[in-house]
Amino acid sequence: MNAPAIGSRRWAIAEGYIPLNPTPSDDPRLVSHEAACLLNANDQDAQVTLTVYFKDREPAGPYRAVVPARRTLHLRMNDLSDPEPVPRDTDYSVVLESDVPIVVQHTRLDSRQSALALISTIAYASGGA
Amino acid sequence: MNAPAIGSRRWAIAEGYIPLNPTPSDDPRLVSHEAACLLNANDQDAQVTLTVYFKDREPAGPYRAVVPARRTLHLRMNDLSDPEPVPRDTDYSVVLESDVPIVVQHTRLDSRQSALALISTIAYASGGA
Amino acid sequence: MNAPAIGSRRWAIAEGYIPLNPTPSDDPRLVSHEAACLLNANDQDAQVTLTVYFKDREPAGPYRAVVPARRTLHLRMNDLSDPEPVPRDTDYSVVLESDVPIVVQHTRLDSRQSALALISTIAYASGGA
Amino acid sequence: MNAPAIGSRRWAIAEGYIPLNPTPSDDPRLVSHEAACLLNANDQDAQVTLTVYFKDREPAGPYRAVVPARRTLHLRMNDLSDPEPVPRDTDYSVVLESDVPIVVQHTRLDSRQSALALISTIAYASGGA
Repeated sequence: MNAPAIGSRRWAIAEGYIPLNPTPSDDPRLVSHEAACLLNANDQDAQVTLTVYFKDREPAGPYRAVVPARRTLHLRMNDLSDPEPVPRDTDYSVVLESDVPIVVQHTRLDSRQSALALISTIAYASGGA
Repeated sequence: MNAPAIGSRRWAIAEGYIPLNPTPSDDPRLVSHEAACLLNANDQDAQVTLTVYFKDREPAGPYRAVVPARRTLHLRMNDLSDPEPVPRDTDYSVVLESDVPIVVQHTRLDSRQSALALISTIAYASGGA
Repeated sequence: MNAPAIGSRRWAIAEGYIPLNPTPSDDPRLVSHEAACLLNANDQDAQVTLTVYFKDREPAGPYRAVVPARRTLHLRMNDLSDPEPVPRDTDYSVVLESDVPIVVQHTRLDSRQSALALISTIAYASGGA
Repeated sequence: MNAPAIGSRRWAIAEGYIPLNPTPSDDPRLVSHEAACLLNANDQDAQVTLTVYFKDREPAGPYRAVVPARRTLHLRMNDLSDPEPVPRDTDYSVVLESDVPIVVQHTRLDSRQSALALISTIAYASGGA
């Protein structure tokens, strides 16, 4: 009944890279990681499919995630395992497709060195809602 | 009478997260914080409503802010208290709706470690002015 | 004769802030600063006007800059002086208007602490070319 | 036969700058560098042309790169050499044109100081697919 919520059904993150941590950390929040933050402001669940692209092999996926209605999911790329984990220290890109409009932001925390570095950018949205 | 100012009426920030500072700082500018920077280039005030989305509970809000005509407001998410504070160390997203076009940029300063980290990205704008 | 070059005629940077450096630096590249990077891929010069918005006073400007044909200009906001300097340690926003399409990216280098922090984001573009 | 993949045929990065490293690093991943990350989600190869713009001379290029079908290419600007290298410690901008839609993200790793700094932002896309 409601108008579609804010967002787009197709998104891309071109610059994926999960750094390898030289030493383990006691605090999981400070381990190097990469996240796709997904906002579903709709009143229905969002079925999201991720495809991961590489430099020198065929894409991996589809990976699947559900973002419940009126919820946000900060999906750690490190945690994906089905159909296969996302390799560390490897360049990749991601395309996300959802059955309802969502908003996608990309974040990396790099703690290879003692001072952490952070990046975050809105992903690339294809077309309108 | 004037043409509408630059911006959009609906914006989203998918990747919200206010870090917890392990130790207090004497300089409020260097405390970990997250801000939504709102530019209102119109000749009338902007009435802005914020809704905060979480991973595992219903959204909070509406929060309300006014950006006066021809002014900018760097709204610290840390300072929101009505109807409830935004929890620390918790993933969230924000949808902003304004009655006139505004421009929204998202910034986080993370000072959990001795070397601060900064991120900033333009928020996601829905449709045109 | 050529098709218009890539870009837009109206841009906004919502999150402006020039940090104050506690101690002087010998290397001007490492002094805290904020830049609007302007690309003019057209075969004619771009006449650019900047208006600076504040939290609690009327906007400053117009500031004027020329980006020659087929050139880029990394404009340091720190260097603007006419009609008045941009104050340090003060929140601001900027609207840029050009007579031909340009591309605008916003960068800040924060060297208040020993480890520098960098942010960069494409500015908000209003409408098409 | 397939619908065009996600992306745009024209992109721009306004804020290009490759820092000079004061001291050499043993780990090439931690040398200051700048990358244009190109995702080609199409079922055909993407022929990409880059033009580099400067402050005070005519543009350099065209540089050429091929992104194979269903692959990503994290192109280090440091590595471009034909028709000429991209100068260090020099402001520049880049326009990218592709014969099929691609997605472009811009990243810089700055390791001039002991604590690295990272920036990343989606590039500016001109028009639709």
